[in-house]
Amino acid sequence: MSIAGRNGLRNRVLDAILAIMRPVAVIGIGKTRFGAFPDRDLRSLAVEAGEKCLLDAGVLPEQVEAFYLGNFAGPSFVGQNHLAPYIGGELGISGVPCTRFEAACASSGSAFYHAVSAVGAGLHDIVLIGGVEKMTSQSTPKVTEILAGAGDTNGEGKAGATFPALFAMIARRHMFQYGTTREHLAAVAVKNHENGAKNELAHMRKTITMEQALAGKPIAEPLTIYDCSLVSDGAAAVIIAPLERAGEFTDRPVQVLGIAQTSDHVALDRKDDITTFRAVRQAAEKAYKMAGVTAADIQFAEIHDCFTIAEIIATEDLGFVGKGDGGPYALSGATCLTGERPVNTSGGLKSKGHPVGATGVGQICDIVYQIRGEAGARQLERHSLGLAQNLGGSGATAVVTILGQR
Amino acid sequence: MSIAGRNGLRNRVLDAILAIMRPVAVIGIGKTRFGAFPDRDLRSLAVEAGEKCLLDAGVLPEQVEAFYLGNFAGPSFVGQNHLAPYIGGELGISGVPCTRFEAACASSGSAFYHAVSAVGAGLHDIVLIGGVEKMTSQSTPKVTEILAGAGDTNGEGKAGATFPALFAMIARRHMFQYGTTREHLAAVAVKNHENGAKNELAHMRKTITMEQALAGKPIAEPLTIYDCSLVSDGAAAVIIAPLERAGEFTDRPVQVLGIAQTSDHVALDRKDDITTFRAVRQAAEKAYKMAGVTAADIQFAEIHDCFTIAEIIATEDLGFVGKGDGGPYALSGATCLTGERPVNTSGGLKSKGHPVGATGVGQICDIVYQIRGEAGARQLERHSLGLAQNLGGSGATAVVTILGQR
Repeated sequence: MSIAGRNGLRNRVLDAILAIMRPVAVIGIGKTRFGAFPDRDLRSLAVEAGEKCLLDAGVLPEQVEAFYLGNFAGPSFVGQNHLAPYIGGELGISGVPCTRFEAACASSGSAFYHAVSAVGAGLHDIVLIGGVEKMTSQSTPKVTEILAGAGDTNGEGKAGATFPALFAMIARRHMFQYGTTREHLAAVAVKNHENGAKNELAHMRKTITMEQALAGKPIAEPLTIYDCSLVSDGAAAVIIAPLERAGEFTDRPVQVLGIAQTSDHVALDRKDDITTFRAVRQAAEKAYKMAGVTAADIQFAEIHDCFTIAEIIATEDLGFVGKGDGGPYALSGATCLTGERPVNTSGGLKSKGHPVGATGVGQICDIVYQIRGEAGARQLERHSLGLAQNLGGSGATAVVTILGQR
Repeated sequence: MSIAGRNGLRNRVLDAILAIMRPVAVIGIGKTRFGAFPDRDLRSLAVEAGEKCLLDAGVLPEQVEAFYLGNFAGPSFVGQNHLAPYIGGELGISGVPCTRFEAACASSGSAFYHAVSAVGAGLHDIVLIGGVEKMTSQSTPKVTEILAGAGDTNGEGKAGATFPALFAMIARRHMFQYGTTREHLAAVAVKNHENGAKNELAHMRKTITMEQALAGKPIAEPLTIYDCSLVSDGAAAVIIAPLERAGEFTDRPVQVLGIAQTSDHVALDRKDDITTFRAVRQAAEKAYKMAGVTAADIQFAEIHDCFTIAEIIATEDLGFVGKGDGGPYALSGATCLTGERPVNTSGGLKSKGHPVGATGVGQICDIVYQIRGEAGARQLERHSLGLAQNLGGSGATAVVTILGQR
C-alpha cells in the first residue's frame, strides 16, 4: 500500500472512531509532591495520589470499573512487578481489570489514552488512571542504565549512548540545521525553574539565572545539568467518566477534547530526521482533528521537557512555531507565564520532576489545575484550552491530549 | 455500598458492555516453538511470531491499526524496555498505538482482553496482539527472583516465599481441606507431558510415568520438579478483526464468544481462601455470561498450569467440577485427550513451556489450532468450543476467554 493510501486508510479509521466516541471528562485529580522520598515506597506514593483523586472526584473505590496504571520500570527500580493489582488492591479496587501500561516515559500517557478510549467507546463509565515511579532508591549510574532500557539497548545501549547522550546528539543536529544556540536551551531551563519555584508539588523549587544555566556542569555536550530533567519519586492519578455523567460527581468537569497515541522506531538511527519526532506530529494532528481545533487555538501546554531540546522540538512538532523556530521562540519569552502561550506552567520535568511513569498523568493533572483555576501563583488568565504532550524514549511513543471546558 | 449492591452494579455494567460489543474474531495466529534458545534475542522471537501471524491472516503490517504486546519482565530478563514500538517497528508497524501490557503471567492475556474490547467497541478493526518472553539467558536463581516480582516482594519476597513456595502452600492447604493427594498432582503432570510430546512447538517433548512424577526431585514440598512449569523463551501472536470483516481475510475465523479480565489482591495473605482464585471465578462468570454458555458446554480448555495444583484448582474455579473435586477429576482421566473434557492438549505450561509474557496469547493460538482442526496428533473430535484461562501471580490477575465457531 502506498503512503498516501496508508494515510487515507488511517484517516478513515480515525473518522470512524470519532463518529462513535462519546465525550469523556476528567472528574477528579490527585498528585503527590514529586521529589526524593527515601522513607516512602512505590505503593504508598501511588495510593496517596489515588486516594486524593478519589476524594477529589467523590468516587468510592467500589465505583471504579477499571484501573489503568502507567509505570515504566518498577521491577527494575524497586523489584516489584504486577503493579496494577498490587496498588489497586490497596486502594480497595478489585474484581475489575487492573492493568499496567508501559510505554517508557509515556507509560501513564498511554494508560490515559487507553482509558479515555475505553470510556469513550462505552466500555466503562468510571475509570481510575494512575502513574507512579520510585527512582531515587537507585544510584545515578543504575538509574541511567534502567532508563537506557527505553532506547535500543542492543545498539544504542551497547555503544554507551545513554539518554543524555541521545538527546545531546539531537540537540547538536538541531543546532547544525537550524542555528539553535545554548542560550535557546538555557531559556527553557530558566523559565521552567521559575515556574517550578511557584509549584508547591514540584521537586526542585529554585530559580536559576541565564548565567547559571549557561555555566552548568556538562553532562553530554551541549547539554549541561540544567538541560536535564530530574530523577524523582512521585505519583499522579485522574478519574474520568462520560461527560454526560460528570455532573454526578463534580461541577468542574474538564473535557478530553482530543487524544491520540502513536509510535515510531525506538532506535534513533532508524529515523529519517532526528530533529523532529514523527510520532508527536502524527499524534498532534490526530488530536487536533478530534478536538476540532488547530495549534493556534491552544492557550497553554504541558510539554515533555526530559531535556530542554525536547521542549524546543515539541513546540515545533506541535505546530506552535515553524520547524527550526523553537529556539528563538523559547528565548522570546512567548512560553513564559506571561507570554502568548505559556509552556510548562508546572515547572515541567526540568523543575517539577520526572518520576517517569507518573509524568503523563501528572501533566493531565497540571492542565486540569489551570483549567479549574486552581494553579495558585502560576494561574493563567487564559486557561480554557490546554494541551499535554508525553514522549516515550527518544520519540518512539507519543501521546498528545487536548483538554478544555466548553 | 454493600457487596450485593456492588455486584448488582457490576452486572449492570457488564450488561451495558454486552449490548454495545460487536462480535470479534481471531483471523490469524502464529507461534514460535517454546524452548531455550541461547542464539535468539527477544525481538527476533516476537518478530517471528508476528510475521507468521500476519502471513496466516493475509494481513499487511500497514493494515494493522494497533499493536498490543504482553510482556512480563523484558527489562529484568534482557534489559530492554519500551518493547511495543521496539518490536512493532521491526514488524513494519508504526504511526499507530504500540503498547506493552503487564499483568504478571497474564500479561498477554490482558493485552488480548484489551484488544478484543477495543475492536468490540469499534475503536479499531485490525489489531495485532503479541506476547513474548526471553527467560533462559538468566540463571535459575535470578529467574526465580524476577518471577517473585509478580508477588508481594515486600512481604512474600522478603520472607523468601518464591512462587514454587507460594503454590506449595496452596497445594498443602488444598490437600488439607479436600484430601487432594500427590497422585492427583502427578496425574496432571503425566497428562500434560503426554500431550506436549505430541506438540512440535512444545519445549519438552517427553512422556513421563506416574512413578517418575511421584519420585521427582522436591522443589517446595509437596511440589516436585514435575509439578513446576518450565522456564522458556518464546513468542505468540494473534490478529483479530470484527467478525463481519473476517471473511476478507480467512474462511476459518474463530469467534471470541466471551472474555473477561479481573483482579484480586497480590499478596496471598490478603485472600480469604487460598484454595480458590476469586479472580478466576469472577472472570469465568463474566465470560460465560457474555458467551451465553455454561461450564458444561465447554468442550476443551487451555489452563494456566504454572504448577500442577493450579490446573486442579482452575478446573474447580471454572466450574468443570465442584470445589475440592479437581484432584480426583484429574486422576480419572476426564481431562486427557480422550477424556470427556480435555485440558491442555498443547501440553500446558508444564510441557509446552511457560515464556511468561507469551503464555496468554499462546493459549489463544492453541485453542484456535484445535477449533480450526490443525492440532495434528492432538486433534480432538469435539473441538468447536474452547476456553483459555490465564493467571497472573498467585491469582491477582485472571483472564478467561471463550472461543468458538458458531
